[in-house]
Amino acid sequence: MDMQLELTYRAQEIEKLIQRYLPEEKGYQKTILEAMNYSMLAGGKRLRPMLMIETYKLFAGSSKSIEPFAAAIEMIHTYSLVHDDLPAMDNDEYRRGKKTTHSVYGEAMGILAGDALLNYAYETAATAFSLDTDHVADAKAFQILTKKAGVYGMVGGQTVDVESEGQEISRDKLDFIYRLKTGALIEASMLIGAVLAKATEEEQQIIEKVAGEVGLAFQIQDDILDVTSTLEVLGKPIGSDKKNHKATYVAFEGIEKAKEEVERLSVDAMDQIASLSEKNPFLIELLRYLIHREK
Amino acid sequence: MDMQLELTYRAQEIEKLIQRYLPEEKGYQKTILEAMNYSMLAGGKRLRPMLMIETYKLFAGSSKSIEPFAAAIEMIHTYSLVHDDLPAMDNDEYRRGKKTTHSVYGEAMGILAGDALLNYAYETAATAFSLDTDHVADAKAFQILTKKAGVYGMVGGQTVDVESEGQEISRDKLDFIYRLKTGALIEASMLIGAVLAKATEEEQQIIEKVAGEVGLAFQIQDDILDVTSTLEVLGKPIGSDKKNHKATYVAFEGIEKAKEEVERLSVDAMDQIASLSEKNPFLIELLRYLIHREK
Repeated sequence: MDMQLELTYRAQEIEKLIQRYLPEEKGYQKTILEAMNYSMLAGGKRLRPMLMIETYKLFAGSSKSIEPFAAAIEMIHTYSLVHDDLPAMDNDEYRRGKKTTHSVYGEAMGILAGDALLNYAYETAATAFSLDTDHVADAKAFQILTKKAGVYGMVGGQTVDVESEGQEISRDKLDFIYRLKTGALIEASMLIGAVLAKATEEEQQIIEKVAGEVGLAFQIQDDILDVTSTLEVLGKPIGSDKKNHKATYVAFEGIEKAKEEVERLSVDAMDQIASLSEKNPFLIELLRYLIHREK
Repeated sequence: MDMQLELTYRAQEIEKLIQRYLPEEKGYQKTILEAMNYSMLAGGKRLRPMLMIETYKLFAGSSKSIEPFAAAIEMIHTYSLVHDDLPAMDNDEYRRGKKTTHSVYGEAMGILAGDALLNYAYETAATAFSLDTDHVADAKAFQILTKKAGVYGMVGGQTVDVESEGQEISRDKLDFIYRLKTGALIEASMLIGAVLAKATEEEQQIIEKVAGEVGLAFQIQDDILDVTSTLEVLGKPIGSDKKNHKATYVAFEGIEKAKEEVERLSVDAMDQIASLSEKNPFLIELLRYLIHREK
């Protein structure tokens, strides 16, 4: 399998799906609708909807609800980036080479566009209830999405990350940040895919564990790349964590131990996935790619 | 009925309900949990949950879902105030005599606390699915809440309001702002109360119309009070709309026409409510109070 080609192809498929769920830019609130779509179409690998859809395929799902939920998780990811980039937060003018939402539309519109996208994510996911009459799986997916995106999930992680800036933090707190800030939405993605495909409780537990390990490995790999990569490969300045006095796994444990930990998490995640009777070779490749990526 | 006493009593009941749904302030994300609770407990008349619960009582509802939805609508109202107060928006240091969330916790935490509250509103509403097995009404309530709070509801109105600051706007655009910024959440409150109480489609339509009229009258009354009230009664500076060159109904139509419009909306809303076979005298008093209030 040519992974890069497969990834590009599947990301394009998801791009089409997402575009079908974006709002039309019309009416008095045209500007904010434009700002929402601008941030949603600013690129990105669409990894979260991809993980959701591939986990759903693993369990041979057949619910129409997968599409609105896949679009919704990307909207939540995107709103978090829009607000992260705001002057009072990371104050970033560019992301992936494109102007950030607030630098194009102004700060007030950046705040409102983020709010609108978060709300639109739930508005989109709620359309699932009109697609089928079995609301049980949809309701559970909704509960997972709201929990993992919120103060006990992604927002909780962001908060502690912001508060910890320039401070010494414990290894335990670092784990907490990684688990919530990056891990929670990856867990939501895979778990919702499993729930909508009506995987068993036991299978759901395995998927949540795999997603947690992949999310953590993904974040540690990020720390490693910040030290070992080059500006050319990474597309952003390396060594920025050290410069910003950012607590990272590498700073705590050293580069070798960090690499070992990524390997350990990777092997365990693969073992867990292999223990399932269902198979989806692309999902395995995708997880491996996420963990061992070079940029 | 001593309306002021009744209002105070029922607001206290709702206060207890809301407190049961607020998060515990513990864990690494303690600060943001404190900030969320700080903004939720900063006062307010709890009109939206009250309208929801009284409409629900009108149709003799018996679903347990009313409580999480009542808490959720107040969380959405509160998050919108937290973000409205931010420096990039209205830049308010005080609200109802108390420091605004960002002036206590900092701007980054103000943004995140608002995000967390919006998300927590949906997380709270989603607990309704675990309270009963009939998910149909809950699902419809969810769709109403997400739609009325979002870019085709409250956020849409906020956006156009922000964009129109200091600009000449048409009467049609002013109506749009009023209908969405203030009206949409009032519509959601009453409509969700009706839906959860399993009112008929026809009854739901009447309730939505009443709520729309009350929301509009409420906002026009706001404009009138800004001109006719006194600092002592209103508790905030009067004449601020004119000072801020704010387009208002009064500026468009004059004070007499504005009063007539409030009266027309009020009479029509009361006629509509009276046309229902179900009765809730307190709800009628509450709507009358909202429309004709003096502060």
